[in-house]
Amino acid sequence: MKQGRYEICLSGSGGQGIILAALVLAEAAGILEGMEVCQSQSYGPEARGGASKADVIISDEPIDYPKVLQPDLLLSMNQEACDTYFQYLKPEGLLVVDSSLVHQIPTNRVVAIPFTQIARKDLGKEGVANMVALGAVGVLSQIISPQSLEDALIRRAPKGSEDINRRALHAGIKEAQAINLKELPPFITSEEEEL
Amino acid sequence: MKQGRYEICLSGSGGQGIILAALVLAEAAGILEGMEVCQSQSYGPEARGGASKADVIISDEPIDYPKVLQPDLLLSMNQEACDTYFQYLKPEGLLVVDSSLVHQIPTNRVVAIPFTQIARKDLGKEGVANMVALGAVGVLSQIISPQSLEDALIRRAPKGSEDINRRALHAGIKEAQAINLKELPPFITSEEEEL
Repeated sequence: MKQGRYEICLSGSGGQGIILAALVLAEAAGILEGMEVCQSQSYGPEARGGASKADVIISDEPIDYPKVLQPDLLLSMNQEACDTYFQYLKPEGLLVVDSSLVHQIPTNRVVAIPFTQIARKDLGKEGVANMVALGAVGVLSQIISPQSLEDALIRRAPKGSEDINRRALHAGIKEAQAINLKELPPFITSEEEEL
Repeated sequence: MKQGRYEICLSGSGGQGIILAALVLAEAAGILEGMEVCQSQSYGPEARGGASKADVIISDEPIDYPKVLQPDLLLSMNQEACDTYFQYLKPEGLLVVDSSLVHQIPTNRVVAIPFTQIARKDLGKEGVANMVALGAVGVLSQIISPQSLEDALIRRAPKGSEDINRRALHAGIKEAQAINLKELPPFITSEEEEL
């Protein structure tokens, strides 16, 4: 795995299964791949307004401070989450958005995949958009194997929903594997700011 | 609610649903009761050994440090968890144990309820011991209403399992409501240490 601390922030709205995705990601890395992981969520006024955010920190050494400070990877499953959390992304961090729902994208250093549309049209169940996104995030982070993600997902998925969740995960993995990260600009700075 | 910061640590083994209990507790306090809440879990060598621990911090003001330092309430669902985490409990903190599985209890300032036995014998499903414990913890913390716990649980319970989970929660609430906390010694210090 990568050396040091890798911070992932998953953001969206209350019904999108953000926290379950974060738990599966954390358990894949922490229990199945043996890395040090902290996973957390905070509930304040934003949560009561319907926003949802979960943090996952993955490291190869014990984690001192358990909150995400500057994400290496930010997933935003709706426009409001993108608008709110993009400012915290590391300059060389990666933005991942659900392009079904995020239309104003603040950087070219972005992977835009229509998670919700894939879940609805290809899988017939909008509610698994979180697992499509998780598959993509797992690949794009470059620190967790698809097999660990699948194993962690099966442990957490409600009985009877394993198959649809597994298919959703693999749809996201496939989308992300088609992306060449080296073709993206190396920094998130927008052109306006560069002038 | 109580003023200031209230720290809850839930501990047990991997299959006992500790993290789901912590999520429901956090969402009851944070989303439904409008308090500030941080909920987190860490995965390191202990998790890979099968141990499970989740933290919930509840406050009436923004939470600066998001990890539990000294729990006000420690739930231990097995002996190993009790042995491991009791040392961190506040002197005036409260230990809550599953007396089906914890037989060596390090303090008289304890509420001992056979959560697993109640789940198995009274409810016919050992897997809901976590929700029996959650009901008790909710009451004993004195900061979350039973109604908020039930509403949060219904949001998180897998479809079809709402009823058994609700009954488990209420079994725990009933057990805890029969306890008079004022009859317990005010501090966790054991008699040996007092000599």
